[in-house]
Amino acid sequence: VSERKRAGILCVGTELTEGIIRDGHVGFLGSHLTSMGLTVSRAVFVPDDPRLLHSTFAEETARSDIVIIAGGLGPTSDDLTREIAAEVAGEPLVFHDDEWLLLQKRFAGRKLSETNRKQAMAPRGFSLIRNPNGTAPGFHGMIGETLVIALPGPPHELQPMFLQSVIPLLEAFAGSSVSLEVLWGTALMVAESNLEEAFQRIRIAGLSWGTRVEEDRIVFSVRGGGAADRETFMKICADSLGALRIRRGDVKPAKLLMDALLSRETTLVSAESCTGGLVGKWLTDIPGSSRAYWGGYITYSNPAKEHALGVDARLISDHGAVSGEVVTAMAQGALEKSGADVSVAISGIAGPDGGTPEKPVGTVWIAVCGLHMQSTARVFSFPGGRDMVRRRAAVTAMLLAEARIRGEEFLDTFAKW
Amino acid sequence: VSERKRAGILCVGTELTEGIIRDGHVGFLGSHLTSMGLTVSRAVFVPDDPRLLHSTFAEETARSDIVIIAGGLGPTSDDLTREIAAEVAGEPLVFHDDEWLLLQKRFAGRKLSETNRKQAMAPRGFSLIRNPNGTAPGFHGMIGETLVIALPGPPHELQPMFLQSVIPLLEAFAGSSVSLEVLWGTALMVAESNLEEAFQRIRIAGLSWGTRVEEDRIVFSVRGGGAADRETFMKICADSLGALRIRRGDVKPAKLLMDALLSRETTLVSAESCTGGLVGKWLTDIPGSSRAYWGGYITYSNPAKEHALGVDARLISDHGAVSGEVVTAMAQGALEKSGADVSVAISGIAGPDGGTPEKPVGTVWIAVCGLHMQSTARVFSFPGGRDMVRRRAAVTAMLLAEARIRGEEFLDTFAKW
Repeated sequence: VSERKRAGILCVGTELTEGIIRDGHVGFLGSHLTSMGLTVSRAVFVPDDPRLLHSTFAEETARSDIVIIAGGLGPTSDDLTREIAAEVAGEPLVFHDDEWLLLQKRFAGRKLSETNRKQAMAPRGFSLIRNPNGTAPGFHGMIGETLVIALPGPPHELQPMFLQSVIPLLEAFAGSSVSLEVLWGTALMVAESNLEEAFQRIRIAGLSWGTRVEEDRIVFSVRGGGAADRETFMKICADSLGALRIRRGDVKPAKLLMDALLSRETTLVSAESCTGGLVGKWLTDIPGSSRAYWGGYITYSNPAKEHALGVDARLISDHGAVSGEVVTAMAQGALEKSGADVSVAISGIAGPDGGTPEKPVGTVWIAVCGLHMQSTARVFSFPGGRDMVRRRAAVTAMLLAEARIRGEEFLDTFAKW
Repeated sequence: VSERKRAGILCVGTELTEGIIRDGHVGFLGSHLTSMGLTVSRAVFVPDDPRLLHSTFAEETARSDIVIIAGGLGPTSDDLTREIAAEVAGEPLVFHDDEWLLLQKRFAGRKLSETNRKQAMAPRGFSLIRNPNGTAPGFHGMIGETLVIALPGPPHELQPMFLQSVIPLLEAFAGSSVSLEVLWGTALMVAESNLEEAFQRIRIAGLSWGTRVEEDRIVFSVRGGGAADRETFMKICADSLGALRIRRGDVKPAKLLMDALLSRETTLVSAESCTGGLVGKWLTDIPGSSRAYWGGYITYSNPAKEHALGVDARLISDHGAVSGEVVTAMAQGALEKSGADVSVAISGIAGPDGGTPEKPVGTVWIAVCGLHMQSTARVFSFPGGRDMVRRRAAVTAMLLAEARIRGEEFLDTFAKW
C-alpha cells in the first residue's frame, strides 16, 4: 500500500496576510482534499512579493506531491502566479491563441484590455483549465514529480473549477491510492481524548480516521482498508465505548430522539433545570419538530419547579433540588401538566458554585417518565466545567429518553458516568 | 530608516489544514501586525505532525524576525508546540513551579490532570505569558536573532493575550511606537459584512480594527490613534448602526439583560416558540442566574401555548400563532402562570418551511409584558436561514426586555429589521 499523497495549498495575496480577506480557500480546498484521502501537509498565505512567492512555490513543489495555488492570476502587475510558476518550472510562458479567441468571443461587446492577454498565458507544457465565471483560466502541469495546479482567487470562480476540472485531475494523478469510500460515525458523550485512545488501540493496517468536534457530539470518518475492515473498526469501537455512545453515520443526538418519537407517534415534554432550555433548543433545531416535541418547562429556580410543575416544596427542602425524588416529581409533573406522552427531566449542579462534598459539581439527575412506562431516574457525575456539564447532561437525557421510547433498558453502558 | 521587520504566523492544528476550523487567527494577527508597521511575510497552517511542525518552525525561524505560533499548547499528546519549539531552540523544556502553583490555585477544587503539568513547561531561557482565560500559558524567547512567541489556539484566550502581553513585547523588539490602548466594542444583530462596511466608511488615520464572530454577537477591537479618535470611531459606528446594537466593551446580550434585572431586583419569565429554549439557555449560561431568571415555557407546539400559557385556541385560529395577538397572550399567560415580574415572549417562522406571502420565513413577533409596565409587541423580519433567524430573534428579545426593564422606549433603532 502506497503512502497517502501530500498536498500543499498556496494562497496568494497581500490582502490575506494583512488580514483584510479572511478565508483563503483553505476551508474549501482542505476539506475536499482530505475527503479524497489526501493529506494536506501545509497551507500557506503569501503576500504579492516576487521573492517570497518564488521561494514558497519552489519549497512547496519540492516537498509535496500536489500543489494547489489559489490567486494571483488577475490581469494586473500585482498578479505574479503565472510568472513565478514559469520560473520555478524553468519554462517560458507561452500564449494560447485558442483561449484568447474564446475569451474575446465570450466578452464580445465588452472591452478586454491588452493586459488581459497575459491571462491567456501559461508555462510551456502546461494545460489550461477553463474558467466559466471569469477571465482568468487556471492551468496545470508537472514540475518534476509534482502536479502543480493554479486557480483564480475569487471563490465563485475557484470552487466550480475545482469541482468540475481539478477533482478528475487529482483522481487520475493519485490513482488507486485515493479511497473515496468513507465510513462515518458519531461519538456521543465521549471526550475527544478518550475517542483517540480507543482508536489507537484498534490496530487495523491501512485505516485512518479524522474527527470533528461539535457542541453535542464528535463526528468521525474512517477511510482506507476494505469495507470489512472499516466495519470491524466500528464494531470494536462500539464494543469498547458502548453501543449507545458510538452510532453509525453522521447523526445528531436530538435527531436520534426525534426519529424514535416519530416512529412511535409519541410526543415528548421536557423539564429542564440546570440545562436551562438546551434540550428544547436542540430538538427545535430540527424543522418540523412540533410533530413530536410538545414543548417544555425551564424550571431553573425552585419556585418554578413548584409553580410550573407542581413539585412539593417539602420534597425540595427534604432531598434538595438535585435528587432522585425531585427529578422524578419534575418528570411526573411535566407529564401531568402537558398533553405529552413521555417526559424527560434534568436537575443537576453545573457549577462553578453550588457543589458540596456529597453532591459535587457535575452531579446530575435525569428521569424519564411515560404514560405506559415505569418512571426511571439515574444519577450521573459529569466531568468538565459548567458548559461541558450542561451539554453532557442534555445529550445524556436525550439518549436515555430515546432508549426508553425504543423500549430498551436503562443502560449499563452509561454506568461509567 | 531600517527595513520593516518580517513576521511569520504559524497556525497549528490538523483541523485547520483539513478545513474543519476556518479562521486560523490570520485575520486577527495579520491586521494587528500590519497596523504595527510589520510585514507579514507568510502565514502557514500546519497539521499536528511532528516532522512537518519541526521543518516549518525551523524554516520560519530562520527567515523571519518574528514568529508567532498559535495553537498546539493543550494538554494532550497531539499538542506539540512546546516540544518542537524546544527542539528548534536546542534547549530542554523546563518546568515552571510558580506557574503550576498558580494554576492549581486557580483551579482549586477541580482536578488538574497530570497531563496539565506539561502546560507549565517552556523551553529553557523562555518566559511564560500569562493566560487569564485558560490553563495554557504562552511563552516567548529568542532563537538566534528571531523573537519566537507561542500562544494558545482558542480565540478568547489568544486575543486578550496578544493585546495585553504580546504587543508590548513586539514594540520593545521592533522599536516602533505602537498605541497599546484598545477600545473594545460588541455588535449585536449586525452581520459581519455590514460591520466591515460601516468600519470602512469611518476613515480616521491610524486606526485599525479586528473582529471576532460568535453565535450571539461580534466582538470588535479598535486600536491606534488617540483616545479621542477611538471614541469618535465608536460614536460614528453607534450612530450609523443604532445605539442598542453597538455597545461598549466585550459584553454578551444575556449578560446585559441579567444586569438590568439584577440592578432592579426584578425577575423574568420567558415564553419561547420558534427559539425553543435558546433565551433560557443563554440566560442560564450565567452562573447564579436563578436570582433573576425565574424560568420559562417552551411552547413550540400550539397545544403547549394553550395548555401551559392559557392562550385561547380561537386566538390562534383567528390570527395565527405568529401574530401580535398570540405573542401578547403568551407573554401575559407566562406572567400570570409564573411568579415573575416581567415576561418576554417570542413567536415566529424560523423556516425553512411555514412561510407565506404575508408572513414569510423570518417573520418574528416579540412581546414584553410586566406587572408595572404596559405590554408591547413588535414584529421583525430577520434575514438568514433557520439558525440565524432563531439567534437573531433570541438576541432581539433579550435587548427589548433589557430596554423595557431599564424604562427605555421601544426602539426605533430596530425599525430597520
